[in-house]
Amino acid sequence: MHEVDLSKFDLRTDLIIENDLKNVVNNHYSDNGIEVDDIVLKRNNSLHKKQGKYVTISFKDITDSLNYHHVLEVFKKELSNMLDYCKIKSDATCLVIGIGNSKIVSDALGSKSLNNIIVTRHMYLIGNVDKKYRNVSILEPNVLGVTGIDSFEIIKNVVKEIKPDFVIAIDSLCARTIERLNCTIQITSTGITPGSGIGNSKEELSLRTLNVPVIAIGVPTVVEASVIVSDTINYLLKKISYMKNNVNNLKDKLKPINKINYLNGVNELSQEEKQEVLGYIGMLSENDLKSLIWEVLTPINANMIVTTKEIDFIMEKTSKLISEGINKTLHRI
Amino acid sequence: MHEVDLSKFDLRTDLIIENDLKNVVNNHYSDNGIEVDDIVLKRNNSLHKKQGKYVTISFKDITDSLNYHHVLEVFKKELSNMLDYCKIKSDATCLVIGIGNSKIVSDALGSKSLNNIIVTRHMYLIGNVDKKYRNVSILEPNVLGVTGIDSFEIIKNVVKEIKPDFVIAIDSLCARTIERLNCTIQITSTGITPGSGIGNSKEELSLRTLNVPVIAIGVPTVVEASVIVSDTINYLLKKISYMKNNVNNLKDKLKPINKINYLNGVNELSQEEKQEVLGYIGMLSENDLKSLIWEVLTPINANMIVTTKEIDFIMEKTSKLISEGINKTLHRI
Amino acid sequence: MHEVDLSKFDLRTDLIIENDLKNVVNNHYSDNGIEVDDIVLKRNNSLHKKQGKYVTISFKDITDSLNYHHVLEVFKKELSNMLDYCKIKSDATCLVIGIGNSKIVSDALGSKSLNNIIVTRHMYLIGNVDKKYRNVSILEPNVLGVTGIDSFEIIKNVVKEIKPDFVIAIDSLCARTIERLNCTIQITSTGITPGSGIGNSKEELSLRTLNVPVIAIGVPTVVEASVIVSDTINYLLKKISYMKNNVNNLKDKLKPINKINYLNGVNELSQEEKQEVLGYIGMLSENDLKSLIWEVLTPINANMIVTTKEIDFIMEKTSKLISEGINKTLHRI
Amino acid sequence: MHEVDLSKFDLRTDLIIENDLKNVVNNHYSDNGIEVDDIVLKRNNSLHKKQGKYVTISFKDITDSLNYHHVLEVFKKELSNMLDYCKIKSDATCLVIGIGNSKIVSDALGSKSLNNIIVTRHMYLIGNVDKKYRNVSILEPNVLGVTGIDSFEIIKNVVKEIKPDFVIAIDSLCARTIERLNCTIQITSTGITPGSGIGNSKEELSLRTLNVPVIAIGVPTVVEASVIVSDTINYLLKKISYMKNNVNNLKDKLKPINKINYLNGVNELSQEEKQEVLGYIGMLSENDLKSLIWEVLTPINANMIVTTKEIDFIMEKTSKLISEGINKTLHRI
Repeated sequence: MHEVDLSKFDLRTDLIIENDLKNVVNNHYSDNGIEVDDIVLKRNNSLHKKQGKYVTISFKDITDSLNYHHVLEVFKKELSNMLDYCKIKSDATCLVIGIGNSKIVSDALGSKSLNNIIVTRHMYLIGNVDKKYRNVSILEPNVLGVTGIDSFEIIKNVVKEIKPDFVIAIDSLCARTIERLNCTIQITSTGITPGSGIGNSKEELSLRTLNVPVIAIGVPTVVEASVIVSDTINYLLKKISYMKNNVNNLKDKLKPINKINYLNGVNELSQEEKQEVLGYIGMLSENDLKSLIWEVLTPINANMIVTTKEIDFIMEKTSKLISEGINKTLHRI
Repeated sequence: MHEVDLSKFDLRTDLIIENDLKNVVNNHYSDNGIEVDDIVLKRNNSLHKKQGKYVTISFKDITDSLNYHHVLEVFKKELSNMLDYCKIKSDATCLVIGIGNSKIVSDALGSKSLNNIIVTRHMYLIGNVDKKYRNVSILEPNVLGVTGIDSFEIIKNVVKEIKPDFVIAIDSLCARTIERLNCTIQITSTGITPGSGIGNSKEELSLRTLNVPVIAIGVPTVVEASVIVSDTINYLLKKISYMKNNVNNLKDKLKPINKINYLNGVNELSQEEKQEVLGYIGMLSENDLKSLIWEVLTPINANMIVTTKEIDFIMEKTSKLISEGINKTLHRI
Repeated sequence: MHEVDLSKFDLRTDLIIENDLKNVVNNHYSDNGIEVDDIVLKRNNSLHKKQGKYVTISFKDITDSLNYHHVLEVFKKELSNMLDYCKIKSDATCLVIGIGNSKIVSDALGSKSLNNIIVTRHMYLIGNVDKKYRNVSILEPNVLGVTGIDSFEIIKNVVKEIKPDFVIAIDSLCARTIERLNCTIQITSTGITPGSGIGNSKEELSLRTLNVPVIAIGVPTVVEASVIVSDTINYLLKKISYMKNNVNNLKDKLKPINKINYLNGVNELSQEEKQEVLGYIGMLSENDLKSLIWEVLTPINANMIVTTKEIDFIMEKTSKLISEGINKTLHRI
Repeated sequence: MHEVDLSKFDLRTDLIIENDLKNVVNNHYSDNGIEVDDIVLKRNNSLHKKQGKYVTISFKDITDSLNYHHVLEVFKKELSNMLDYCKIKSDATCLVIGIGNSKIVSDALGSKSLNNIIVTRHMYLIGNVDKKYRNVSILEPNVLGVTGIDSFEIIKNVVKEIKPDFVIAIDSLCARTIERLNCTIQITSTGITPGSGIGNSKEELSLRTLNVPVIAIGVPTVVEASVIVSDTINYLLKKISYMKNNVNNLKDKLKPINKINYLNGVNELSQEEKQEVLGYIGMLSENDLKSLIWEVLTPINANMIVTTKEIDFIMEKTSKLISEGINKTLHRI
């Protein structure tokens, strides 16, 4: 077994919430079943993340219209707070950028959201506009692999040319746990690196590179196969722990096995029990387990980036929510 | 541990090739790196499958235009053989049915393939048609969840009304191993049950129910999360076996660990070694392992049906190949 | 000139409102700038039309959200009245059919409207449904030229199979005046003949052929080139009439010529004046003029069926209004 | 009648071929029914057009696959000639720009053509590329009304940033005769003014403004209603002329009136005959007629910009031809 390289493998995540947040001040609240984590990181923070404000909105589902409405309300409130945090004035002009590839549905959150943004800059160019509408323009730079042009090259030059007071960038992200897939909206003041989620590291979009505040909005829409595997192994251990602790639970005995939600259980297995169930693998730390699985899948091209079968429908709803929230925050409508 | 129900769980597969074929006559051949398995099952066969002809075409990739061409040639040849097997005459009229939901890209193989089928029945209705064109019509019944109407109800009545001599039904399938995802075309003489791959069992389309031969063409485009997990655990065991046997392989030592294709190794681990690595889990039979993982993921709604991020692009190519192959087989063009 | 065949040419129209309605009882009203004509024809009526109720809703524009809302309210009210007229009970099951070709945007009103219909029949099949939802299913038969199957053959058999209590059929129509293009919704109790607007006469969908009431909803989205020409010649005469009567109108003299809305003028030119301006053509009756232009354009394949450049955008709004109105009428939501 | 303003109204056209070319050297040829007009204008030419090379390819139809192939061959040859004329070297890098609004099908020629362009610049950025592929990138700036940003602002800055050796710009044009609609490809060395066809005059894309050669490819896909009317009045006069001259033509008497192609006739009507038929209107010059009709339709918002009902299908074919021709000209494939 010693041949397997289990050296630490710091799996990068797009989502602040997937980090270990125990030493971080988290202004957390719940609202209609929606969890909001509001974290402000200082320079040189323990997470080695850029300083700034990171808001994470976690929800169960927005395909139900009532839930959609609740999430929209929270998103509007938090986006508005983010504008205040970034000291954006009520008449500041905004460029909304849709990152990603519009031809790949799981990467099209940016593009699809732009479709519904209320654009006004051209009306400001020619005359008087109802003052309840802010000066807003949009840009869809597409991706390097499609256009042959790095999206940053396009964005940088357009920002220099039209000089917006701030930028909102919308992107699909890569989740590091299946629980977050299509169930999280992250809003940050720190900008975004297009395509970073899937390993094509490029120049970031941020105040530093564009000279205007960049508010990033991201939703995880894809996940690596290796994440599905490591999550499942963790679930397996939780399930066995639950079973052990509920062996005499009469209520459970009356339920079909597929209806027992073992995540409610709290006890953890001991190291010995883990080894009994999962051998050497059971004793690995979470990071080591992830690295191992990554190493199993990658050399045989099996570490696919996957998305759910219903992604077309979910993307429709998510992009509608993002654009509706942006419109109602930017404009007084 | 004994609470875990590991009773046999016969996971149904849409693909004949994913069964244990050791007692079956398989007329196998390779052509330009494409593997073809041609199996004819008799009544009361050991696989408990319907009697008939099952052809499986396995390939690496059709996004490269040379590979596309090779696979197209094989597909045409095998579809033509299937028509002969089903005793379809050269002037027999054909109804091509696209099964699935056109609004979900991973389920839209049928719908997308229909877009390119050369349709002639309406020209036959009004007069003379160049005899190199067969009488062909198409039908896209969509799915129950979208229309409120079982697709079988629509198909049965249209077949009764327009009386085609035979039917070709195209559908997206659910794979049981990630290796087959988007890399297999199955052609069968036994018909198809729409939506069966994802657990919505409905009435089958077949000679028995429609009174005309039904040739089914399927491509696996989605996979359950549990399959990804069980496949990975098998890969893990193979990798460890390979590592054990190649610990002193100098050539491997010079390669980055992610470039070593351990699938080339042949040796298997002993039961003891499996237990050392994976504990109790390592000793499960393949079916028991699959059942266990299914039981872990299903109660917490994590057994998602997933598809690859590139599905839009792959579907474009696959549907083009299917329709081009059908056109060139049905018509003399 | 006598060689020109000017025999009467009864240009058929899909829209009741484009007929001479002077001997017809028209229950007309206006609401927020929307005109509603509600006509009930008896058997053997002077228009030689089928007996039944014909409602025409005429509006200026629904791309503005306020107008959209007003038109939606009127449409809902009139569709609801039509259900009452046809004696449809509140729990009667409904099949909504989208006529036309989804791949041609100007013909895709039916298909696009179906996308947003709330479908419930499959839920009724499996159990209890909240009683505020009616039992509704949808069908998109596509067109003969695409499928090789007459849409009537599909519809007739599906209606026989699933036995809805009534049918709503949505179709794009052909306008006979450019003023009506995309600005009229017609609701009738008399059914519809798919494709009739553009000369492919087929079997009608109606109570007679389907044995259940058929409510048809149509919007004119295309127009023949010849209609544009004959309308323009009529406008030319009106303009000249206006100019003659306003030669000393000081207010007009201060306006750019393109801002003078001459349609406000009422006087008509005399026959002599018409001849002076337009010669022989000026003296033709409206029907003769239309026939002549049709004869000029048709032999040289110039009588194109055209649609406006903005059709994609207009179709988006119109189909949304139709489906929203149907949902709110069929279901109690 | 004297109130009608008939002052000359110089209707601008996007197509060189719609000008009076009698004093211009036209290197004309026919090939498989395709007409090619190859005009090189000097500085201070009689057409008051920019100096440069203007190639017009006129064809009947490209929805037939044989015609498609013929037109493609001519297009490739003429595009290649244009590159030679502009002294583009075989290894010069190219930026292909798709002008227009991808959401309006009649304006989406640029966008749709880009979908199939073989892009390589990103591969050149990272290493060796097979030298048969030229360095090519693409840009889709969309339109001001959608993005709030003038497309010229985006293009200018991207050209400055990535420094292509030349630009190819693809756009949908506005036809001035219905005969040219979807039946003409124009290739020019003089660049293009985005949106100029429909009256939104903006900054041109050309060597002068971008500092690199700009080859423009345009296809007329829309036409003003007024053009349909003036064309029809001209056809009417031709038809009457033909009828007069063929009153005793026995062959015609055996044909249905709609099958007689009167465009074959050559004689023209005298001024008196025109006045008899069309009165004052019949005596107007072509330009005066166009101006008059424009003045009739514009004040009442009836001078719609229209496109053919089949535009979706035609656009599919045309964009495929343009992209295929560009790929085979830019790359050695």
